[in-house]
Amino acid sequence: MGLKSAAEYIESLRDGRETYWDGERIDDITTHPRFATPIAVAASDYDYDNPARRDVISYVDESGKRSHRVFQIPTSEADLAQRVELMHDMSIVGGVTGVMMALLSVKDAVAEVKPEYAANIERIYKYVRDNDLRAAEVITDPKGDRSRRAHEQDDPDLYVRIVGRDDKGITVRGAKLHITAASLVHELVVMPTKGMRQDETDYAVSFSIPVNAPGVKIINRSFAAPDLNTFDYPASAHHSMPEGFVIFDDVFVPWDRVFLAGEVQLAWRLAQSLGLWERVGGLVGSVGTSKLFVGLAQLVSEMQGKEKDANVQNTVAELICYAEMLRMGLDYACRHFEKTASGMVYPNGLAVNSAKYYYAANYHDAVKRLHDLAGGLVLTLPTESDLRSNATGGYMRKYLHTKAGVDVETRMRVYNLIRDLTADAYGGWHLVVALQAGGGLSAQRTMMNRMYDLGGAKAAALAAAGATPKAEAVAAQ
Amino acid sequence: MGLKSAAEYIESLRDGRETYWDGERIDDITTHPRFATPIAVAASDYDYDNPARRDVISYVDESGKRSHRVFQIPTSEADLAQRVELMHDMSIVGGVTGVMMALLSVKDAVAEVKPEYAANIERIYKYVRDNDLRAAEVITDPKGDRSRRAHEQDDPDLYVRIVGRDDKGITVRGAKLHITAASLVHELVVMPTKGMRQDETDYAVSFSIPVNAPGVKIINRSFAAPDLNTFDYPASAHHSMPEGFVIFDDVFVPWDRVFLAGEVQLAWRLAQSLGLWERVGGLVGSVGTSKLFVGLAQLVSEMQGKEKDANVQNTVAELICYAEMLRMGLDYACRHFEKTASGMVYPNGLAVNSAKYYYAANYHDAVKRLHDLAGGLVLTLPTESDLRSNATGGYMRKYLHTKAGVDVETRMRVYNLIRDLTADAYGGWHLVVALQAGGGLSAQRTMMNRMYDLGGAKAAALAAAGATPKAEAVAAQ
Amino acid sequence: MGLKSAAEYIESLRDGRETYWDGERIDDITTHPRFATPIAVAASDYDYDNPARRDVISYVDESGKRSHRVFQIPTSEADLAQRVELMHDMSIVGGVTGVMMALLSVKDAVAEVKPEYAANIERIYKYVRDNDLRAAEVITDPKGDRSRRAHEQDDPDLYVRIVGRDDKGITVRGAKLHITAASLVHELVVMPTKGMRQDETDYAVSFSIPVNAPGVKIINRSFAAPDLNTFDYPASAHHSMPEGFVIFDDVFVPWDRVFLAGEVQLAWRLAQSLGLWERVGGLVGSVGTSKLFVGLAQLVSEMQGKEKDANVQNTVAELICYAEMLRMGLDYACRHFEKTASGMVYPNGLAVNSAKYYYAANYHDAVKRLHDLAGGLVLTLPTESDLRSNATGGYMRKYLHTKAGVDVETRMRVYNLIRDLTADAYGGWHLVVALQAGGGLSAQRTMMNRMYDLGGAKAAALAAAGATPKAEAVAAQ
Amino acid sequence: MGLKSAAEYIESLRDGRETYWDGERIDDITTHPRFATPIAVAASDYDYDNPARRDVISYVDESGKRSHRVFQIPTSEADLAQRVELMHDMSIVGGVTGVMMALLSVKDAVAEVKPEYAANIERIYKYVRDNDLRAAEVITDPKGDRSRRAHEQDDPDLYVRIVGRDDKGITVRGAKLHITAASLVHELVVMPTKGMRQDETDYAVSFSIPVNAPGVKIINRSFAAPDLNTFDYPASAHHSMPEGFVIFDDVFVPWDRVFLAGEVQLAWRLAQSLGLWERVGGLVGSVGTSKLFVGLAQLVSEMQGKEKDANVQNTVAELICYAEMLRMGLDYACRHFEKTASGMVYPNGLAVNSAKYYYAANYHDAVKRLHDLAGGLVLTLPTESDLRSNATGGYMRKYLHTKAGVDVETRMRVYNLIRDLTADAYGGWHLVVALQAGGGLSAQRTMMNRMYDLGGAKAAALAAAGATPKAEAVAAQ
Repeated sequence: MGLKSAAEYIESLRDGRETYWDGERIDDITTHPRFATPIAVAASDYDYDNPARRDVISYVDESGKRSHRVFQIPTSEADLAQRVELMHDMSIVGGVTGVMMALLSVKDAVAEVKPEYAANIERIYKYVRDNDLRAAEVITDPKGDRSRRAHEQDDPDLYVRIVGRDDKGITVRGAKLHITAASLVHELVVMPTKGMRQDETDYAVSFSIPVNAPGVKIINRSFAAPDLNTFDYPASAHHSMPEGFVIFDDVFVPWDRVFLAGEVQLAWRLAQSLGLWERVGGLVGSVGTSKLFVGLAQLVSEMQGKEKDANVQNTVAELICYAEMLRMGLDYACRHFEKTASGMVYPNGLAVNSAKYYYAANYHDAVKRLHDLAGGLVLTLPTESDLRSNATGGYMRKYLHTKAGVDVETRMRVYNLIRDLTADAYGGWHLVVALQAGGGLSAQRTMMNRMYDLGGAKAAALAAAGATPKAEAVAAQ
Repeated sequence: MGLKSAAEYIESLRDGRETYWDGERIDDITTHPRFATPIAVAASDYDYDNPARRDVISYVDESGKRSHRVFQIPTSEADLAQRVELMHDMSIVGGVTGVMMALLSVKDAVAEVKPEYAANIERIYKYVRDNDLRAAEVITDPKGDRSRRAHEQDDPDLYVRIVGRDDKGITVRGAKLHITAASLVHELVVMPTKGMRQDETDYAVSFSIPVNAPGVKIINRSFAAPDLNTFDYPASAHHSMPEGFVIFDDVFVPWDRVFLAGEVQLAWRLAQSLGLWERVGGLVGSVGTSKLFVGLAQLVSEMQGKEKDANVQNTVAELICYAEMLRMGLDYACRHFEKTASGMVYPNGLAVNSAKYYYAANYHDAVKRLHDLAGGLVLTLPTESDLRSNATGGYMRKYLHTKAGVDVETRMRVYNLIRDLTADAYGGWHLVVALQAGGGLSAQRTMMNRMYDLGGAKAAALAAAGATPKAEAVAAQ
Repeated sequence: MGLKSAAEYIESLRDGRETYWDGERIDDITTHPRFATPIAVAASDYDYDNPARRDVISYVDESGKRSHRVFQIPTSEADLAQRVELMHDMSIVGGVTGVMMALLSVKDAVAEVKPEYAANIERIYKYVRDNDLRAAEVITDPKGDRSRRAHEQDDPDLYVRIVGRDDKGITVRGAKLHITAASLVHELVVMPTKGMRQDETDYAVSFSIPVNAPGVKIINRSFAAPDLNTFDYPASAHHSMPEGFVIFDDVFVPWDRVFLAGEVQLAWRLAQSLGLWERVGGLVGSVGTSKLFVGLAQLVSEMQGKEKDANVQNTVAELICYAEMLRMGLDYACRHFEKTASGMVYPNGLAVNSAKYYYAANYHDAVKRLHDLAGGLVLTLPTESDLRSNATGGYMRKYLHTKAGVDVETRMRVYNLIRDLTADAYGGWHLVVALQAGGGLSAQRTMMNRMYDLGGAKAAALAAAGATPKAEAVAAQ
Repeated sequence: MGLKSAAEYIESLRDGRETYWDGERIDDITTHPRFATPIAVAASDYDYDNPARRDVISYVDESGKRSHRVFQIPTSEADLAQRVELMHDMSIVGGVTGVMMALLSVKDAVAEVKPEYAANIERIYKYVRDNDLRAAEVITDPKGDRSRRAHEQDDPDLYVRIVGRDDKGITVRGAKLHITAASLVHELVVMPTKGMRQDETDYAVSFSIPVNAPGVKIINRSFAAPDLNTFDYPASAHHSMPEGFVIFDDVFVPWDRVFLAGEVQLAWRLAQSLGLWERVGGLVGSVGTSKLFVGLAQLVSEMQGKEKDANVQNTVAELICYAEMLRMGLDYACRHFEKTASGMVYPNGLAVNSAKYYYAANYHDAVKRLHDLAGGLVLTLPTESDLRSNATGGYMRKYLHTKAGVDVETRMRVYNLIRDLTADAYGGWHLVVALQAGGGLSAQRTMMNRMYDLGGAKAAALAAAGATPKAEAVAAQ
């Protein structure tokens, strides 16, 4: 119990978990080459001995002991600001562990329906925190035919469901998709993928289960090649993380790990709570990425002596506008936070959805602008091996020179970051994740429709139209 | 001295000012039909006796007396918030009087070069405030051939310039374009249109002069017909305001009204200070307009029973996103204000420029979305006269009925507001003003390029690319 | 019978038609000031004596006599090309008379169901052509609550319907909206607004009726002021045309003027045939307008010496791309025409819909680009009266001068055209019409979904995916 | 001489060429794993024995023998149509061999300056054709500091230049970037990267040289992993092709292979001729890709039962519009071809540039739409190995089932194609190539500015503005 070291984290993964890559069972992921980079990435969050990061990544919890800050329950704007700082300095494994915040933010609502479930949330939270564990967000079901509901599918298992109940617990069957880092965490926190109707009782289920629980199987998939180096892959070498296709093959869940088991009225609440925190994560990431885009666009232009070109300046300005709008949206969301009954705060829902939508709807366009400035060398630049080779390195240094003060190696790193981030496998991952994390464009539009004060806007419009007596006296907008 | 009544304001316009419409001199604008609506609009800002507005539109100044709040020098975020509230509840004549804030925000910089000028700014400010006068922003020169500088034009008068100086004052000649409400204010606050070089001394000139000063002539132009009624023109009937083409035909300006007369290093500062406040005005207006768009889109759809249509919901969500991003940008700009040496605060420059640019670059698109939902009836709806007519009113009530609870007259008002605001003469004015107020898209991009911390973004990009030793240890974005 | 002169056309309008403006009955539209410009516009299509236009606007019909070319039934690509040329050189009254082509293009389909109706189409067509009459497209019903069908509305008259039938004809009741030029034509060609279901028999009705038929009443509405001059309003002075709100107050239609009276299976066909020709009209117009945008953008920039500015060149290039894509789409649509059983050809449906959608979806953006280059003077330029005035004209000539070779008056005309076309009442009309003519964006998307060869695209995708024939079964479904 | 077989092509690559991968010299590319897929791709163009392709990929030349159709000089629209069909059915190696067309299209202009060069073009063309060789487009220089011209760079070799001349030939030094398939062809056809000024004589150089000429060295780079299989990589497995960084280390070129050696007035002509054909290639490819996008969007939606969802239909319609506009642009470009003095035809320049720009400027957006419909499974789908594994395959078949008639394997292939084409390494390559092939957005805008009939558009605008002939003088300037 207490903070783990990176070594302890790695050791903890040797727990018999059933995980697969390319169709083969991996007995020990800590020694398998496909997991080398992902484990290093995940382990970087246990860097408590680094004085420069210690206060960013840890805090003193209510019991007086130091815990990872990902577990701090925010109660003020300042807490949210610290969490944002943390999110900029944490791996995606730390990021998904934020699922605990989603759970906690519905605890009060759950308690009203069934206090035992709320107590389970509290207990699991403390267990994960106090043992410095990591947890995955396990939400998306395969869904089969989208025009039919969960219980109408050809196969009743196309949504995770309860197939057995007894006094000790429930048994669940089904699969969940897109489970980032599933093989790298300790707990799978399972949520319903959406609201459920009255006749879908068995599908309204939520719980947390250890990754090595019997019946849990994970098929891994990664965008990344196994052998990323930091010169050619400066971004993905720090972010390579497998996605898990997680199967629950009649998995038993004891009652003290259950958060929902049939109370359909709560299903939507749980689904939404995770959605919000996923979008917060996307928004925080977008602030960092969009700033990088500005920096890269400017660097790649300056290095070629093109920074005074009007097209370059226009394009950089467009990227600045994108970055600033996102940064301001995040600032607003934290300042105008919302609060649960028990005092936990979370970023403003409408603000998060609006800014996340703006991010998603315009991300491909921002990539286009960066590509426009960067040019074809993004694709055709030879690799570090070519640079280090006696046969070819000299030619590269000669012909990639642009002007005094521009180091060829630095120039190559800048192109590599642009390619890795936007025009290679990780770039493709980013494009899809920007859109899909927290639900696609359509889902995000629906959230805005629901959260916006349409009544207020209609009243303002009616007043401006002179449609109420009062309005006659008021200058229309 | 002190607050004026609306009647006193109107009376004050009968001061012999030389103003023209359709080529004819107007002897007394207060009795001329073309000015009836504009004067009523301007007079609405003198509504101090209205208890509902009194605290919004006035404040107690440092001498203990009540003044219009447009003259309050903000020193805190709360002051800026009150100013925003005021801007939502003030005519465009009040809006342009905000030019005093632009002047005051450069007072410290002016004082460093010539303390007398700074004293003039202070004195004119108090004179205008204490007499409850109105002032116009007088900035844009005709500019002639844009590929040449001010002193290189075919006619040296194509930028306002000093043609004489003596111990009593300066004499100026030239013209200024786009001077909103020029004929409706008391003071013309003249600023240089841009930075001036060392050899353009005579063009670096700024001053304030009464509208009725000898040699000042104003040619008026308005988007609006003279006979706007509030049913068919619910927006423009409250916003009709002539634009002035202002001529300075050898106008004498005494030294105590001069803010700049040859000190070229200050020209850009003055031009920019006004630009910022113009953009703030545009941004505040955009927050109101974009909220109206959401309300109108929802209303027009609900009234036809189309609010559950997926296209309607998508489009409303897009408009919500636009409105919310603008609102959040304004919030950020006020929260992260900037401050002059003497303690005056103003909205964050980069934030204002970014959000204003976002507004301008996407305004035509927002109009498109509203037009898409509103349909052709926006254009073809008969008028109030048709509705009130015995011959035609009955048919209109019959055939414009949609469903229970939707009042035909209200429905007509909603269409009229959409047309007036976006698809009629005032709508055209809005489209151009959204882009051009505070400089066109290109000018606004340039401001972002200048204000953004490009160094910081480049450093972040280099770190993420692994281009600095320090960066190797830091996880790239 | 035979070609009319302009005077004969005007005389023909004095036929007792019941038409209203601002709630008042107009006894003789030919002497009413609101109709002066519209009638002049409509009369310009009778300019047969002008040798420069004669061959464009007329042709020799199958009986050997000369008719207006709007009545020529195209049977080849060359005919379509001539029709396009005509459409560029014809008033909007001529344009809507193109409704005869819509009727003719469904004649074969109608004949299969009821030969008498097809004969009526043929007869009315010849009657209109041989008397050189004009006809209006009368299609859009008020529609009431869009979530309900025609016969489910609160008031059964919210869609035009048959309220009586006898051996002489039918009696119809209802109203039609957005009937451009209704008061300026001779025939109202009424079409169903959409497909009708089996239980909506009374709503499946189509016919042609003279404007002065008893019970027909027209409420007029125009975007335009009554007093447009060609200097300040160079576009709208040639396009001002009232829109009619047309009421059918139990209008009797003899059987020989009926095209549909209950055969619900044809309703959608008639509605669509008109939709296609409306979109063709929109597309042809867009080719002209988009070329004007390029010319105006370039002119307004050259006149200020800004044509070498990179932003100007970028923006002009964007407008060129828009104009060229539209021009190419129209060329394709005519080249790859479709043909009815009896040999009439019409532009390719998918091509027209795609290009029209591209036009509509991007028109507001094109306007934005033009506004960005044109600047604020679009709004604030004084009028011709100011220019001609001794008091103000001299100042305008002095201060609107830019450089040698640029005539101030010409410069003013260019600004006026930009304003009139894009930033004034007519500009607003254009914005809405670009979107709504031929159905809004949603309706046009639906047409593309229907017309595109989705099966071919799916097969190509499956082949590229390496899928086996087995898979093609589902794809073809 | 004559058509080669695939085996002969492969054998021909064993000619001692000096080519590198990851810094290491490859002695025989035909046996090296990195080249296995690229060589198979290139060899597919020698598939003359396939009766289904024979007439597409070959033709009977003027000497009566059969040659690859890539060498057919088009002289009619029908020829262009056949070439388009060929381009859809040819590898990228065949595509770049189209450089011969670029050479031939400037032959007449070259002949006017130096007939020997034109004869060289003719001779090399026949040599390549008659030996069924392949050639690469070798154009882009490293360019160093873009604010300086070729001869002003820190290193004079940053643009390829002539470093020696004698009676036998010239000696050249420098490098060329982005040379697709350089290691897979026989001839490197070198062109100047842009126009050259009078003092840049040594940089105005063009020639063709065998890949194995002494001093030619190629550093290869590929987006693709070496082990692409057609299930997981259905697109890139057929398109994997290395890009070459080509070094000319004092390469001797005999006079009979020289097309330009100092005649600076021709440099721009050669550069542009290649640009046009590169853009034609991009446009032809875009027609195919955009149709695939429609098919994939529809398939992925149908397979999930979402094809009736309004968002799906909207998005598919947007993709249809994109695909159709491109297809129509290509049709127009071929129909309205241009012709050289000696009768060779090529697609209309303005049409190609406009449509290519439309493609490039909107490609990222089209990808966004496809990503929006496809969802996260694009990224997280397990691989073929997982499907074929006994341990995991059963779960995949169970949980990826959607509904009757949808085969899981086919569904996986569809997702894989989407990922491979738009969200993986090859997808990134596509994003950049869409923008950059034939020059970036800025270069393409410049071409439109140059090629469009601005004078005609200005005249139309002046006429519409009612301007007098007097005004046309300035407009025509």
